[in-house]
Amino acid sequence: MTPFGARLQAAVAARGRLCVGIDPHTTLLSAWGLDASARGAREFGLRVVDAAAGRVGVVKPQVSFFERWGSAGFAALEDVLRAARDAGLVVIADAKRGDIGSTMSAYAEAWLTPGAPLEADAVTVHPYLGVGSLEGAARFALENGKGLFVLAATSNPEAAVLQTAPAGAEPVAAAVARAVRALDEPGASWSSLGLVVGATVELATRGLSADLLQGIPLLAPGFGHQGARLEQTDALFGTLAPQVLASASRSILSAGPTGLAVAIEQHLAELEA
Amino acid sequence: MTPFGARLQAAVAARGRLCVGIDPHTTLLSAWGLDASARGAREFGLRVVDAAAGRVGVVKPQVSFFERWGSAGFAALEDVLRAARDAGLVVIADAKRGDIGSTMSAYAEAWLTPGAPLEADAVTVHPYLGVGSLEGAARFALENGKGLFVLAATSNPEAAVLQTAPAGAEPVAAAVARAVRALDEPGASWSSLGLVVGATVELATRGLSADLLQGIPLLAPGFGHQGARLEQTDALFGTLAPQVLASASRSILSAGPTGLAVAIEQHLAELEA
Repeated sequence: MTPFGARLQAAVAARGRLCVGIDPHTTLLSAWGLDASARGAREFGLRVVDAAAGRVGVVKPQVSFFERWGSAGFAALEDVLRAARDAGLVVIADAKRGDIGSTMSAYAEAWLTPGAPLEADAVTVHPYLGVGSLEGAARFALENGKGLFVLAATSNPEAAVLQTAPAGAEPVAAAVARAVRALDEPGASWSSLGLVVGATVELATRGLSADLLQGIPLLAPGFGHQGARLEQTDALFGTLAPQVLASASRSILSAGPTGLAVAIEQHLAELEA
Repeated sequence: MTPFGARLQAAVAARGRLCVGIDPHTTLLSAWGLDASARGAREFGLRVVDAAAGRVGVVKPQVSFFERWGSAGFAALEDVLRAARDAGLVVIADAKRGDIGSTMSAYAEAWLTPGAPLEADAVTVHPYLGVGSLEGAARFALENGKGLFVLAATSNPEAAVLQTAPAGAEPVAAAVARAVRALDEPGASWSSLGLVVGATVELATRGLSADLLQGIPLLAPGFGHQGARLEQTDALFGTLAPQVLASASRSILSAGPTGLAVAIEQHLAELEA
């Protein structure tokens, strides 16, 4: 079984660092001429998968936009997840779950069990209950060739107070990164346990040094409509830039169903120029 | 439209502070003679609702244990949520969601929209992205007579480093509580925006004073199998004890389907002695 980190690294080596968001936002569904319904979200997601397949290595469905239709939305999401994985895409379920003990294990089971209806390759998770609360989920992921992306440092201004609070000798975000690093098996070139680090976060203000983050995949939202430009990736992340997954959603998806493929290629060109 | 805080306060006044967890854990399903499946989880949830109705005011389905069966699990959860609300119970969906902007709004929409398939009365949420990231969800809740419970201070030992980190002049947990308080409309006897505060947390170590928490409903897991005894509630929470929702799951659910009603009554008696 190939570890998630190795699969992700290979996908990025083959197709670049762009991660295409699958966000069936009401505004976008309407712009695409689709119903604001589970059926519309399914159609939306499948079209993004079609356009992404063969062009990029990684997609990131945004779970909340499916969840608002309950079980029908989840059935749509299951079809989108399956289509994406069948197309050879690495799939990060952006679910931002987080709990303790057997409850957290059930979330890991939901998103990372081979053959489960919601199977993805990795899932995003919250560290507010302590990174230790994610230990069982991390072990489950590693045992199944899957990954986690733990929220560490985000770009939204209202996050700064908490994420920069000193947890011992370093900011909370750095303490999270250090604890995540300690959960992974040593030796892999890319870890299977990644971090979410917003594209416009000043890494130094969060205590996030290149040493600390070395080898950890960094899922970086905030490109496109959220403010960062893809061609800035190397400048923003320095020596860490090769392990950044630059995630863009609205700026690609607003191209509409017929413009998607071109938009994806333009984004890739900007990122990998 | 009655605000959530007022509805919760009335439910507690009528039926006491016990909140019955609905956790269809694999071990419990097996002990109850039910399949480890969405169908088993549905049956489990409906039996808990039956036993809880008329005995307590509040139930708390644990979403992860349904989510692991994907859309089928969510369909089961929808039935359980509907049955609980139809029985007049106040329903807190323990989903622990958390995101920013329109993504967070979609989670609020999923769990708090009147008539939505997953409609609950309140949902638990994460503050790692800053309480400000929850502002839209809070507004949505207040406009719809619904509530949020924001994770503030939890009992699991691995949470302490983050939750006690100084965010300005006070620990992160207290900063979260203060920001949540600021989001609510003033004047209500009980706020519609509550906090999750573990039963065995030493409130002082988290900067959580009686003044700061006054009028904020406190959802307190950690009773029963997790270590705190219900008869200690007044000692643990002091003047805040009347606004505590003492949540117990395993210690009730392990009584099995035929023992549930008695277990609930015993728990209530211990709590309200």
